[in-house]
Amino acid sequence: MDQPHNGSSRRTFLGVAASATLLQVMTGVVPAHAAPAPTGLLRPPRRTGGGKTVAILGAGVSGVTAALKFIEAGYRVTILEAQGRIGGRSLTARRGDTITEVWADGSARTQTCRLDRGLYVNLGPARIPYHNQRVIGTCRKYRIPLEQYIMQSNANLYQTERLWGRAPVRSGQIANDVRGYVAEYAAAAVRKGLLDGELSEAQRARLLALLDEFGDLDAAGHDYRGSLRSGTARPPSVPRELERKDPLSLPDLLESAFWDTRYYWELDYHYQGSLFEPVGGMDMIVRRLASALPAGVITLNAPVHAIGLVEDGVRVAWKDADGEHAKTFDYCLSSIPVPVLRQRVDLQGFSADFGRAVAGLGFAPACKLGWQANRRFWESEKYQIYGGISWVEGETQQIWYPSTNYLSPDDKGVLLGAYCAYDSGLTFGDRPHDQRLKTARAAGARLHSEFADRSIVPERQGVSVAWHKVPFQLGAWAHWDHTISDHREWYESLINFQGNGTFMVIGDQVTPLPGWQEGAMMSAEWAFASVHGGRRPGRVSVQRAPNSRLVTTGR
Amino acid sequence: MDQPHNGSSRRTFLGVAASATLLQVMTGVVPAHAAPAPTGLLRPPRRTGGGKTVAILGAGVSGVTAALKFIEAGYRVTILEAQGRIGGRSLTARRGDTITEVWADGSARTQTCRLDRGLYVNLGPARIPYHNQRVIGTCRKYRIPLEQYIMQSNANLYQTERLWGRAPVRSGQIANDVRGYVAEYAAAAVRKGLLDGELSEAQRARLLALLDEFGDLDAAGHDYRGSLRSGTARPPSVPRELERKDPLSLPDLLESAFWDTRYYWELDYHYQGSLFEPVGGMDMIVRRLASALPAGVITLNAPVHAIGLVEDGVRVAWKDADGEHAKTFDYCLSSIPVPVLRQRVDLQGFSADFGRAVAGLGFAPACKLGWQANRRFWESEKYQIYGGISWVEGETQQIWYPSTNYLSPDDKGVLLGAYCAYDSGLTFGDRPHDQRLKTARAAGARLHSEFADRSIVPERQGVSVAWHKVPFQLGAWAHWDHTISDHREWYESLINFQGNGTFMVIGDQVTPLPGWQEGAMMSAEWAFASVHGGRRPGRVSVQRAPNSRLVTTGR
Repeated sequence: MDQPHNGSSRRTFLGVAASATLLQVMTGVVPAHAAPAPTGLLRPPRRTGGGKTVAILGAGVSGVTAALKFIEAGYRVTILEAQGRIGGRSLTARRGDTITEVWADGSARTQTCRLDRGLYVNLGPARIPYHNQRVIGTCRKYRIPLEQYIMQSNANLYQTERLWGRAPVRSGQIANDVRGYVAEYAAAAVRKGLLDGELSEAQRARLLALLDEFGDLDAAGHDYRGSLRSGTARPPSVPRELERKDPLSLPDLLESAFWDTRYYWELDYHYQGSLFEPVGGMDMIVRRLASALPAGVITLNAPVHAIGLVEDGVRVAWKDADGEHAKTFDYCLSSIPVPVLRQRVDLQGFSADFGRAVAGLGFAPACKLGWQANRRFWESEKYQIYGGISWVEGETQQIWYPSTNYLSPDDKGVLLGAYCAYDSGLTFGDRPHDQRLKTARAAGARLHSEFADRSIVPERQGVSVAWHKVPFQLGAWAHWDHTISDHREWYESLINFQGNGTFMVIGDQVTPLPGWQEGAMMSAEWAFASVHGGRRPGRVSVQRAPNSRLVTTGR
Repeated sequence: MDQPHNGSSRRTFLGVAASATLLQVMTGVVPAHAAPAPTGLLRPPRRTGGGKTVAILGAGVSGVTAALKFIEAGYRVTILEAQGRIGGRSLTARRGDTITEVWADGSARTQTCRLDRGLYVNLGPARIPYHNQRVIGTCRKYRIPLEQYIMQSNANLYQTERLWGRAPVRSGQIANDVRGYVAEYAAAAVRKGLLDGELSEAQRARLLALLDEFGDLDAAGHDYRGSLRSGTARPPSVPRELERKDPLSLPDLLESAFWDTRYYWELDYHYQGSLFEPVGGMDMIVRRLASALPAGVITLNAPVHAIGLVEDGVRVAWKDADGEHAKTFDYCLSSIPVPVLRQRVDLQGFSADFGRAVAGLGFAPACKLGWQANRRFWESEKYQIYGGISWVEGETQQIWYPSTNYLSPDDKGVLLGAYCAYDSGLTFGDRPHDQRLKTARAAGARLHSEFADRSIVPERQGVSVAWHKVPFQLGAWAHWDHTISDHREWYESLINFQGNGTFMVIGDQVTPLPGWQEGAMMSAEWAFASVHGGRRPGRVSVQRAPNSRLVTTGR
């Protein structure tokens, strides 16, 4: 059984002596290697927030989650949100919503979402893996209904310009034919006694039996001659039995290099079933959490431009509808994305290593594009697709079908027409919105002719975002490279306190789960445990930085 | 793209000459090999039912589907249903429903379903594969909401008494570790040039690259050292990166013989995703179809005891609340399960080969057991299971978790505690209900300690069915063995007309999809096309009987 996450209810009293030690650690007096293990809390809490003030910068998932914890513990919380809405990257676009990007030439370009009322598209996080128990626990606690997100269906398609007459091939046929060939090769190795010494003869016989099942091999020769798993050649009828479809040839499969898409994504830790999505849109979570906050906690349109570590806390300066403000809080938690912190915020009194981290950490470029379809053509008898992802070459790479409202009576639905990150995210994001639509439409039309029809997929009902161009976001997630030692140092700087235990960076950016709401909640928990719970003194050290590519793209 | 099923709208006029030919074929005058291809219709229809009468025996999915077609075409339809309810094996049990079995000693044993109001369990068909387009098209047409049925989650469990300290192991860990080892063996074969001659050096390099992705191999040596796909050793935290879990050893995996459960079921044609279930219970389909029939079409509690092929049609005798009846209909379609036909119905005027088929065809034994859980413990942080099937040794074999109402506020749910067919279905079915519960509880408790707690899984809220003991059913599906030539002959007899084109057997029993509602609807379509559409004359022949085990158990 998996172990539960560190949700212990043990709290601790962080007395003056401990604070002094903490300060020593913060200032480097106690060597890091002398610090005790990073996780765990010292002893049950005896203090409450006692009216101490906390500024939380950013009303995204981490900020709102942290606010609820601190308020419950008796702190007075102020959330300053730079944008005119809560949620940050947890963005569900609905009719009338606007998305603004600022381009390299300084121009601001704003789209208005024109989906029909009742439709929506998740432009940020869109999936909740079953092991993201902080998010799922939150949904349970706040009664946020979840439905399954379908990552893959055998009816999904893969298309390449190089093979099969450019016709889309069923994703399930690829998967099952590959299984067959792989099992056939493995059986040949077993029969030849390769990798021997490892297995007894009886074990080899069992392995062959397993391979027959694994790949649906012909048991006599342990070879692959096609499988009903890959579908029927023709639909069965009363007098016509189920005839298996001929397998794709191995040379063709190899030539296609289908796995260079993220074809096997669904096997990865974060994309394995079960996956969830909230009914009605991903922002249901952050909205529900925010609605649980007392009125007045959040100030929107309040970008922070200076943070100073001062004797009695953290001095924060911001501007909002009422004008300029500056106030000293006992604590400050900043979920401001590091590139925004670097670009827009004057930092005073922070350590040099913290400064290096802020100067160094980059965020990943990523784009999403969704649009309305006036016919759920993919659910027709022709395609039989009910959720999942189809794969196509080029920047747009993937097309998601809705995992909800199947066979909807209004016959409308929203397709995710592109999702690309890193290199292809940069390229795609550098296209103006109309060119993004054009690129995505051309890719979609290679899978579904209906995609070319503007009466079915109307131009004006497409919406796109390049997260790295969105002000106050400047990227989709923190790009941590676990192989780079600078990254390790930056990460360590960012997950530890600044000041006299008064300032902390929060958000998925400072967790091993960049890009995931689970990370945002993990960070809020960590910050709360650190400030209120009395984390054991000592600078927390880490072995390596997180691996952002692995947890976002699966590679 | 898959071809659509044979739903052509071409109809034909079956004139006197054609009828005469048909009669000749029926009586054997025209040799079967001279008969034209079995599928397809001759030409567009010009006649309507013109008030001709049709008796449909059985108000299950095939009967009700056929009734709608014939009524729409102008026939007068009477459905005679032996039981006190419609639906046949499409049975969803809810509070107050009763299930009666008749045992070998002649005793009738009746259970009353005691699930809490609002809960239900599908005791017959429970899944709709995406390619079952007749069923899905029906749900679209009649606005029957569908939701995804989840066949498999990586969080599901497998447990064996022989290994791993009898602890359940995550199904996803088995799947991914096996993928790794299989890919490693395959890579060894590729590097040794086994199965060579087939691939060029460049292709072999590509195959190795594919195998690295396929199995998450270490790219340097193409060997398997474990994968994050199999889960994390410990939950990640802010300072703790994602650590992959150690792989299960190949010898242990082989020793477990995990694949002797139906572990790879989810790969099979009928069990691949996407799969659906109707919101609210499988019987929503047959109920909705029945509600579209004019009032008075269905007579319940009207078992037929004689069917005679007579000059001017088919004479049917039955008994209902009003007493004995006998009436001659122009046509008769019987969905009565063949073992029931054999046991209870006096057949007059049928051909000898039809008689042999009725005497010979057996139905498969199968049992299901469901019960209420007062806590959705499997959805807790401890288990993280949201749908899918866990596997356990012994008769009960599998435990299904609900694919609906996740994190339900009332925290109740229905588990399928056993589903077994053929040998294990016989053994399990021969246990009295309380012993079935005992067996299933013991199996469940090996996966979840909560299963042993009667306050969580109350004894009285369990319900079971052995379909082979249910009167008027006598089995779960027709057992066709495609390797037996007698079965081929029986199948051919049953799918063709009897009488002067007046009598036909219908139901999933006479399709290549025994046990599937898609088969029931296919059969209704076939019967309608045969009677009304004017199927081309000639006895329809088949190559082989269906393969019931394959389409029901996957083997």
